[in-house]
Amino acid sequence: MLDDSDPLIDSSFKGFPHQHAALRRSEIGAQGWNLLRGDLPLPLAVIRRDALAANLQWMQGFAREHGVDMAPHGKTTMSPQLFQRQLQAGAWGITFATVGQARVGIDAGVRNCLIANQVLTDADLAAVAQWRRDATDLRILFLVDSIRQLDLIEFWFDRADVALPFEVLLEVGLDGGRTGCRDHASAQHLARRLHASSAAQLVGIACYEGLWAKGDSTTDAALADALMARVIAIARDCDDAGMFADPEIIITAGGSSIFDLVARHMRPALSRPVRALLRSGCYVTHDHGNYKRMMTVMNSRLSCGHGLRSALEVWATVQSRPEPGLAIVAAGKRDLSFDVTMPLPVWVCRHGAQTVVAAPANWKVTGLNDQHAYLRAPEGSAIDLQVGDRIGLGISHPCTTFDKWRWMAIVDDGYNLCDAITTRF
Amino acid sequence: MLDDSDPLIDSSFKGFPHQHAALRRSEIGAQGWNLLRGDLPLPLAVIRRDALAANLQWMQGFAREHGVDMAPHGKTTMSPQLFQRQLQAGAWGITFATVGQARVGIDAGVRNCLIANQVLTDADLAAVAQWRRDATDLRILFLVDSIRQLDLIEFWFDRADVALPFEVLLEVGLDGGRTGCRDHASAQHLARRLHASSAAQLVGIACYEGLWAKGDSTTDAALADALMARVIAIARDCDDAGMFADPEIIITAGGSSIFDLVARHMRPALSRPVRALLRSGCYVTHDHGNYKRMMTVMNSRLSCGHGLRSALEVWATVQSRPEPGLAIVAAGKRDLSFDVTMPLPVWVCRHGAQTVVAAPANWKVTGLNDQHAYLRAPEGSAIDLQVGDRIGLGISHPCTTFDKWRWMAIVDDGYNLCDAITTRF
Repeated sequence: MLDDSDPLIDSSFKGFPHQHAALRRSEIGAQGWNLLRGDLPLPLAVIRRDALAANLQWMQGFAREHGVDMAPHGKTTMSPQLFQRQLQAGAWGITFATVGQARVGIDAGVRNCLIANQVLTDADLAAVAQWRRDATDLRILFLVDSIRQLDLIEFWFDRADVALPFEVLLEVGLDGGRTGCRDHASAQHLARRLHASSAAQLVGIACYEGLWAKGDSTTDAALADALMARVIAIARDCDDAGMFADPEIIITAGGSSIFDLVARHMRPALSRPVRALLRSGCYVTHDHGNYKRMMTVMNSRLSCGHGLRSALEVWATVQSRPEPGLAIVAAGKRDLSFDVTMPLPVWVCRHGAQTVVAAPANWKVTGLNDQHAYLRAPEGSAIDLQVGDRIGLGISHPCTTFDKWRWMAIVDDGYNLCDAITTRF
Repeated sequence: MLDDSDPLIDSSFKGFPHQHAALRRSEIGAQGWNLLRGDLPLPLAVIRRDALAANLQWMQGFAREHGVDMAPHGKTTMSPQLFQRQLQAGAWGITFATVGQARVGIDAGVRNCLIANQVLTDADLAAVAQWRRDATDLRILFLVDSIRQLDLIEFWFDRADVALPFEVLLEVGLDGGRTGCRDHASAQHLARRLHASSAAQLVGIACYEGLWAKGDSTTDAALADALMARVIAIARDCDDAGMFADPEIIITAGGSSIFDLVARHMRPALSRPVRALLRSGCYVTHDHGNYKRMMTVMNSRLSCGHGLRSALEVWATVQSRPEPGLAIVAAGKRDLSFDVTMPLPVWVCRHGAQTVVAAPANWKVTGLNDQHAYLRAPEGSAIDLQVGDRIGLGISHPCTTFDKWRWMAIVDDGYNLCDAITTRF
């Protein structure tokens, strides 16, 4: 087992002081470093400590109130330390997208792994089987959505000398969506085959709604209601036919956009206790863009006050002011998400200053190159920035910012570094 | 100094066999692994050995024929082993986008570092000064494009107890472009200030044309001609005024799109020898998308035969066939470039097979999620793929695929792993 919770961080890690000796991650909080004082080279990704703590608590509270358990998607952060924080906050387990990601989680101490994806290759099946054999307290569940996938699992199982059938969830999918059985008949057919298989045990039903949410409560509720009705219908069929292998039945759903709309359907009355697992991942840092927008809509549904807080920022330096309305900032596609919307200018800290002010709302990042951002004032006006000023950029979609950093600083409200996390992409 | 040329690779590295003990990078080629036989979990990024070798040779030959030197942009790969291959092929040095990247290069043995960017923060300046003091054979050049930047450099220099002025290049920029002085008068003004400064020595002139190339020879030649005329004009002025500090004068330009169109202007007749540095980076693996398209146009200008070869592929497994025209492939934004165009299906290897066939030209990746690709046949037709089949995806824009992998396999034409590289993003 690798110990990834306290690795060495050195100056080959982007944002670590160039001339400083390598440090254990856990030593970084004691160095007295401050981002605004210039103690670290920019760009640097930071997570705001208090917002992170609040998000962990809010989400777990949400789950508790709705009678569901958290299996937050670990692919968002791929950070052993954040997995541990999520488990400490009360999560049942962690979700992963791949067997390799699950391995990183297991090494970080995760015991309940939900691979929310089809597992089917020999290399992946062999690893899952081996790890389960090696540790009897370890659960690794994964999804099945086709007879062909089950055939491949059985083909491997028959050749391998393993006793333990895989624990699987049958996946129901949206028409025009991604993976998952598209209709009840094919789900029923697959369930019967799973029940008859010695290579797999059916332990629950899975679906995923997040990518198809629009941010309109009426439309999104209709989507979630229809999908969850199909999940419950097949769960009921399987329950009636005694197809579930465990004393509890797992129902799992949930991206980060409309998890409230699926959560309310996740505990149908079945013959056995239902364990409802919500897989939302982005809540942990939240964002300043897409998920903030979705959360604003969700807040109006929940009437629950502040909800989640934007915890993730990437700080960078103005390197050039080549035209009156244009500032070139030294951070780009290598540092920031750009797949949903461009980063958002949130804070300004003048050269030499140690306090931040809010960036004008009409500044926009209009483009990114690999290592540069184009920050513009509205057409025709000059942008009040000098070379050397610092910009705190908010992001849209945490997953595609996390994967650009091997470490991130955890900061207090004065941008003092009080801790650090690492990632394993 | 870190030794990054032969690091340990373990199963926390995406694509490394889940159950295998950690190996030194240099040991991977001797394991007898084959991608098509399923010896490694997918997705996996691979570089084709022969195409890589051909590209290194072709590019160096191009430079030699045009009387220019290579300082290939290291930000593309951030791979110590590829930096070493580029230097062995004859490159004068390596270009970087940041001081942190230069540090990785220096640790890999690079002695001539061109930071093709504005350096101005205390943290960055202190590191550059320190490294130059520590190693007298080390050169670290960077760009200056504003009086304000020079002020910041001088402000740092005056406080620091260093004797060695920084070696800088004055950057000329395109109107509506990125960094760089927009007109001759401001470049002249900056040159005079640089000449008078005790903190900096002017050693050449820089520009960058790549992002504004269209793939149309007439338009692109006009762009390159006009930009290089401005570069040469300011170089001539500085030369006439005796402002260059070194016995040779550096002229540098060159992205990966139209480097032939700038190279022909990079050796103006000046009073001292000119060292022309071409900074193209993407040539090393080339691609199947944007740069392939640009290269097709360049080939027609150069009449030079095959030019560059597409060396970089990401292999992934078909995990679901939920609709007749749709295959879901287990690789996504975490694995593949998507910033210029979507990945391109290039090869198919059936489940259990060990030979590849070309993917039909009308298959398309129509979308990517974090961990999934949507591969579609033309509207109305079924796609001939089964769950378990493997797809070799070509990419568009190498930089944004390299940064998604901590290692990549080097393979022969039979997809036997014969070597490996690592990256340091």
